[in-house]
Formats: sequence, structure tokens, C-alpha cells
Amino acid sequence: MTFADMAPDRYPAILENACARSRFLLVCEHASHEIPGRWGDLGLPEELRQAHIAWDPGALGLSRGLARRLDAALVHAPVSRLVYDCNRAPDQPGAMTERSEMHEIPGNRRLSPEERAARTAAIYAPFHADLRAEIVRRLAQGAAPVLVTVHSFTPVWHGQPRAVEFGIIHDHDPALALAVLEESRDSGLVCGLNEPYSAADDVTHTLRLQALPYGLANVMLEIRNDLIATPEAEEAMAERLAPILARALGSLAAPAMAG
Amino acid sequence: MTFADMAPDRYPAILENACARSRFLLVCEHASHEIPGRWGDLGLPEELRQAHIAWDPGALGLSRGLARRLDAALVHAPVSRLVYDCNRAPDQPGAMTERSEMHEIPGNRRLSPEERAARTAAIYAPFHADLRAEIVRRLAQGAAPVLVTVHSFTPVWHGQPRAVEFGIIHDHDPALALAVLEESRDSGLVCGLNEPYSAADDVTHTLRLQALPYGLANVMLEIRNDLIATPEAEEAMAERLAPILARALGSLAAPAMAG
Repeated sequence: MTFADMAPDRYPAILENACARSRFLLVCEHASHEIPGRWGDLGLPEELRQAHIAWDPGALGLSRGLARRLDAALVHAPVSRLVYDCNRAPDQPGAMTERSEMHEIPGNRRLSPEERAARTAAIYAPFHADLRAEIVRRLAQGAAPVLVTVHSFTPVWHGQPRAVEFGIIHDHDPALALAVLEESRDSGLVCGLNEPYSAADDVTHTLRLQALPYGLANVMLEIRNDLIATPEAEEAMAERLAPILARALGSLAAPAMAG
Repeated sequence: MTFADMAPDRYPAILENACARSRFLLVCEHASHEIPGRWGDLGLPEELRQAHIAWDPGALGLSRGLARRLDAALVHAPVSRLVYDCNRAPDQPGAMTERSEMHEIPGNRRLSPEERAARTAAIYAPFHADLRAEIVRRLAQGAAPVLVTVHSFTPVWHGQPRAVEFGIIHDHDPALALAVLEESRDSGLVCGLNEPYSAADDVTHTLRLQALPYGLANVMLEIRNDLIATPEAEEAMAERLAPILARALGSLAAPAMAG
């Protein structure tokens, strides 16, 4: 028996722009609000299943705009983070959350260990295996991928408005994040380093899992979602951020070496 | 097209003792000297294809002995490290090495980027995806796995004899390694912390990739291979080391928490 046989159903990552030629590899863990049929509606009304608790509105559109402009590949997840949040390890409370902001998720209440394992095998494991496959293929071919995860955040959280518009977040290796911050000076955006949250809030799982072990340059980007609320706004933001990312990478002295 | 379609052939990890109940998860990356037919003999005589450059003699037998005594699962690689060394990232020179100790590996000379990518997809990617699947299944079910990689080393290296018998190696998280060293005091073995080599020699890839991102307690063990040269010696060494590992884990104050 192989390990794959243990997972009755798999939701592979979606890869776009596979043959892109730049070093950038864009990742969008919260691209989709799709809840596959086997998980029903998780006990939530339609409105909440479309809201920011289910996905990062605008993040996929922005990522696609960046991918085109940067000639970058893009990997994104096909399932709502309400079923499994691919930016969380399986033992983190947020992986299959019982609560998001002020909303209870009835379909996630008191999940059995078997159900937690089944969702992990069906969604988390294939997503990260597929992303890793793309990274290691490039490494094997002599390329030095640069991992950029793209997220959006809600302008109001627990009733409090958030002033920051563009959050730049790092884990143990801050080099690319600091370079992006530096290059964002004249962007006209209210920028925040490690805002609206930071690695201490356990939001950098993908960076830790996929970039740090290989010594890849990496950063997590967070855009306030009211700034990318339409396809036109997504495009405009991509047009604004793509040159910032390109300059930031160029400013790093040398390609990141594997650790 | 899914990512899996890109790999024409896969060599999945081998899982033994899947239903074991202890927290230990044993890993043996260099368990096999098998070279699948598609890679011929790599231009090496039979003698070298059986020698320590191809695998870690005794490591699998020792791992099995430990797995039985510790009630631990064991994950091992089915292909010789001469084809792909699963304890190396694809961009590390040792991943598909052109030279091992004083021996050239003709079949690895000037590999094309395509061949490097094919071996990575066929051997490295499935091994680590399968190992990760086992780790995250346990995490999802509320368990806190403890990763122990088991290796052997040659008593003579480039003509120099090595005095150390039992090497205990760590990466950024030294807790379990220090506990194993402490519990080995009365083992009668010549112990060495980060000997005969260390993380600085890039030998801790599996720990970095599989343990650190999840905050798992972890250690890499290296046994001098003349001490595990027969099935009886493997068993005797397992009998000696199993209680050391059990006591070392017990001495850690609390289960490692995900980072």
C-alpha cells in the first residue's frame, strides 16, 4: 500500500503559468471560497461562505496580475480555508477553525481525529506536496525560486478599522520583506512591516515549510481587500506592486543560497 | 494536468509499523543500495554499488530493531543515495553526487537539468511527501511526533580512522540531541555531539524540512557501521539505544509545540 492510497480523495494545487521564466513563484493559499460537496455548507449561510472568513477576496486576481507582469508561476489552493487553511499546520487551531472573527463554524465543531486527518490528507498534504514539487524541480534545474505568498485582509476586524493598506510579513529570514518595504516608500500605500499580524501569530506557515528549509528568498504580502474589490482594482494594484517586487529582488545582493 | 503527471515514475517511501503507538517516527533515508534499472549501474562496479557510498550499511536493520522496541513507525527510502540522496535538497551538490569520498560516479557526471529534475520528481519529492503525510496525519489527530533519523558512517574516511562510535547531530533545535547525549553517558559508546559531521556540513536536510517547520522534537543519529555489521550486531545496538532514546524523550519537559 502506498501513502496515497490512504487518502480517498485529493484536491491538488492549481498551477498557472508553469513555464514562466522569472524566479518569482507566487502562492495563494486562500484563493478560493469553494466548499466541495462532501463538506456541505459547514452550517453557514451563503453570505458567510462568500465572505472573507472563507477566502481572501481579491488575492487570486491580484496574484494573476502579478504573475503576468513578473513572468511568474502561480500556485493556488482550490478549497476554502474554512475546510482546511493551507497556511496552517494540522495541529494549529486555525487549520480547521471552529471560529473565524466573530463567527462560529458549525461544521468544524469538535472534529474527530479521523476527520481532521482526512481533511489534512485531502487538502493540506497535496497542496504542499504540489507546491514543493514545483520548488524542487526548479532547484534541481539550477534555478533559485523566490517565494511570494499573496493574501488580503479585511478593512474592519472585530469592529476596528485597520489603517494599514499593504502589509509585508516575514519569518526568520527578513531580507526580501525589508527590500519590499524599502521599495514601497513611494507607492502611496500605507505600508506596515509585520502588519496587520506577524509570524508570532502563526501566519507564516507556508514560508516556514516551503522557503526556509531551502534558503529561498521569501515574503508574505497582505493587501487590504477594499483596495482590490473589483477586477479593475486588482489589475491596478498588480501594476503598482509588480515593479516594487522586481526592484526589491534586484536589490538583494545575490541569489539566496540553500541553507 | 496535475503535478503528479509530470513525474513519469515514482519511488514512494516505504512505511513500516504504521500503526505503532509511540511518538517516535524513525526515518532512514539511506536504507537501500538499490539502483533501479533505468539508471543502469551508474558506471560503477558491483563492489562499489554495495559499499557505504551507496547506502548506510546497518542503518535499516538498526532502525527496525529500534522501531520494534520503541513501538515506532519507520519510513525509509527505496533507492540508493547514489541516484538521489533524500537527505539533500535538489540544489545541494550531494543530492546527485558526482563524487563520493574518493570515488567518481560516472553515471552522475554533468547531469542535464532535465535529468536532475526527473530524479528529483521520481525519488526526492515522493519520499518527502510520503514522510510529511505521515507526520501531518499524526499532527491532525492530536499526536506530537518525534523525528529520529538513523544513519551509519564508515570507520575510515579518506584513509583516516574515526574514533567516534555514536554521533548525535542537531540543527537549530538541539533539545532532543542534548537529551540523547546526556542519556548516553553510561552507554559504553564513544559519543560525539555533531560528529562526525554537523548541520554546517548540510547533513540535516530532513530535520530542517520535516521537523523544524512543525516544531517537532528531532535528532539525527549516526552509528559507526562496523558496530552494526551483522544482523546480531544491529539487534544488540538497537537494544542498547532504544532505552536511551526513550529516556531522552521522557526527560524533555513537555511535548514540542508547533512553532
